Amino acid sequence: MTDIDMIRAAARRLDGFARRTPLLSSPFLDRIAGRRVLIKPECLQHTGSFKYRGGRSAVSALDAATRAKGVLAYSSGNHAQGVALAAREYDIPSVIIMPMDAPQLKIANTRDLGAEVVLYDRAGGESREALGAALQAERGLTLIKPFDEPQVIAGQGTCGLEIAKDAAAMGIARAEVLVCCGGGGLTSGVALACEADAPGLTVRPVEPQGFNDVARSLTTGRIQRNAEVSGNLCDAILTPEPGQMTFPIMQRLCGPGLAVSEEECLTAMGLAFQRLKLVAEPGGAAALAAALFHGDQITGDTVICTISGGNVDAGIFARALATLLPPESPPR
Amino acid sequence: MTDIDMIRAAARRLDGFARRTPLLSSPFLDRIAGRRVLIKPECLQHTGSFKYRGGRSAVSALDAATRAKGVLAYSSGNHAQGVALAAREYDIPSVIIMPMDAPQLKIANTRDLGAEVVLYDRAGGESREALGAALQAERGLTLIKPFDEPQVIAGQGTCGLEIAKDAAAMGIARAEVLVCCGGGGLTSGVALACEADAPGLTVRPVEPQGFNDVARSLTTGRIQRNAEVSGNLCDAILTPEPGQMTFPIMQRLCGPGLAVSEEECLTAMGLAFQRLKLVAEPGGAAALAAALFHGDQITGDTVICTISGGNVDAGIFARALATLLPPESPPR
Repeated sequence: MTDIDMIRAAARRLDGFARRTPLLSSPFLDRIAGRRVLIKPECLQHTGSFKYRGGRSAVSALDAATRAKGVLAYSSGNHAQGVALAAREYDIPSVIIMPMDAPQLKIANTRDLGAEVVLYDRAGGESREALGAALQAERGLTLIKPFDEPQVIAGQGTCGLEIAKDAAAMGIARAEVLVCCGGGGLTSGVALACEADAPGLTVRPVEPQGFNDVARSLTTGRIQRNAEVSGNLCDAILTPEPGQMTFPIMQRLCGPGLAVSEEECLTAMGLAFQRLKLVAEPGGAAALAAALFHGDQITGDTVICTISGGNVDAGIFARALATLLPPESPPR
Repeated sequence: MTDIDMIRAAARRLDGFARRTPLLSSPFLDRIAGRRVLIKPECLQHTGSFKYRGGRSAVSALDAATRAKGVLAYSSGNHAQGVALAAREYDIPSVIIMPMDAPQLKIANTRDLGAEVVLYDRAGGESREALGAALQAERGLTLIKPFDEPQVIAGQGTCGLEIAKDAAAMGIARAEVLVCCGGGGLTSGVALACEADAPGLTVRPVEPQGFNDVARSLTTGRIQRNAEVSGNLCDAILTPEPGQMTFPIMQRLCGPGLAVSEEECLTAMGLAFQRLKLVAEPGGAAALAAALFHGDQITGDTVICTISGGNVDAGIFARALATLLPPESPPR
């Protein structure tokens, strides 16, 4: 089980590899939110999301002989790229299993990072787990799960160590920390780091409306599932349910969950473009959207928001830009 | 005249105020450029451009009694916002003289930063200088020029101190540093800082094609003017001619200038969006465009590029996004 010592050890292994992201701000966002808003821009992390932290943490934690055989991940998104880059840095093979209908750009990017991409026919009922198990058996690959894996949680927790340190340097003793939440790897890791280094910071998960499995699980005290895991712009943070490892940590440490609409995420992306000069993906803008548009559910004079990733297609980003334009002038 | 001691003094005055921007990179950009590309993202600076450094440096260098009367700037763009924020931080008045036909958003943003905006009728032949002189006489305001002012150059030079320090930490002894160049404040400041702290780094100005007054001035050894100072997307770096103070510094220290097209800047903006998750304005992407598309004119295995600003309208940014889309699918 992940603890603060594992997070600190992960931070040592990531030192010189992961980017040390700052806390950013804009007086314009403060005014919209009605309080100080600090942004942790993990879109600036290598591969464009916090997932590199967990990927590198997990790969670097393997013993050398195991690692040399290579790693395996199921992912069509940010986790794939994080694992692929970490594997390339160690000069070991990585195999990423992706659905055949994943966007070509994501497949190309993952290959460009040195991974072997194996496609499976999701629609035709092919099982990625069976495919993965066969590859593991055949080639001795180690599976790196996207969130329910102690060293992945430890890696994501390094983001929390940085938040705790920078908040202390700014004299912030109490604040809510809003974290874009899918399976809960980042949320639980940041919560563990804050528990140790900044106990006045309270982590709260932010999810898309209609996909708030974590919030409902926290309310009911038992793991709840989403009815659907697709059909929302915030694809990076859509998961069926919280992890077996992440949920108990969130239950012990987190405040209540928040939920945001797709339109709020697009508007937050537009404001991140305009006021922070950052590119956020829809799911990566969820925490900022909560800070800006659900301030009535937040307490205190300062809120800290992760922007968890920035891997968004130009077409969707154009929709975010359109939120900035007056209604009479459609986006070009 | 600005020297390294003035730059170091400016750095002390800016400490805790200006953002310490990192050097970023992407393997995808390295591959396009054919060498390592390091990015200095001043779009992440307060007010969205490096101009805050010079504005804060100049305002903080005034004696307290002079400063208390307030400051004045002519600008419709990034310099206005940099000076306005610095003035607000000191709780002193700032007056920004802008043309009546400046974009409403820029006027609103400058006002929102606490400045008093005075509009003049450019088309009707009203002289901003006469207006400014009257305001100076009447209210005792100090004029902060956008580049030809020693303390402004010193402030921009702090960007160069950071580049020199980070390059040394990465073991980079020799590289070309491409700087987006208008009047030469940033270029000359960075060149002075590198001369002192990283003599193996050679600064080269990058300008829009057709507006390469600095490059031509360097070639001929005498200040050359542009025929036009409008009609190019890179509005932030269009100036009639290099400054009387900046030119001798650039002449002594800089390598030959480079020139980029509008289309190259838009493409570089698209790649900065896709690969760095950064928002660059057209002029702010000029140096990256040179690194990516004019590599035949660059030497060495590493190039460092400023992204000097990110204050771009959504409509123009949509054009940059369109460079990423396949030709058969027009941007939405």
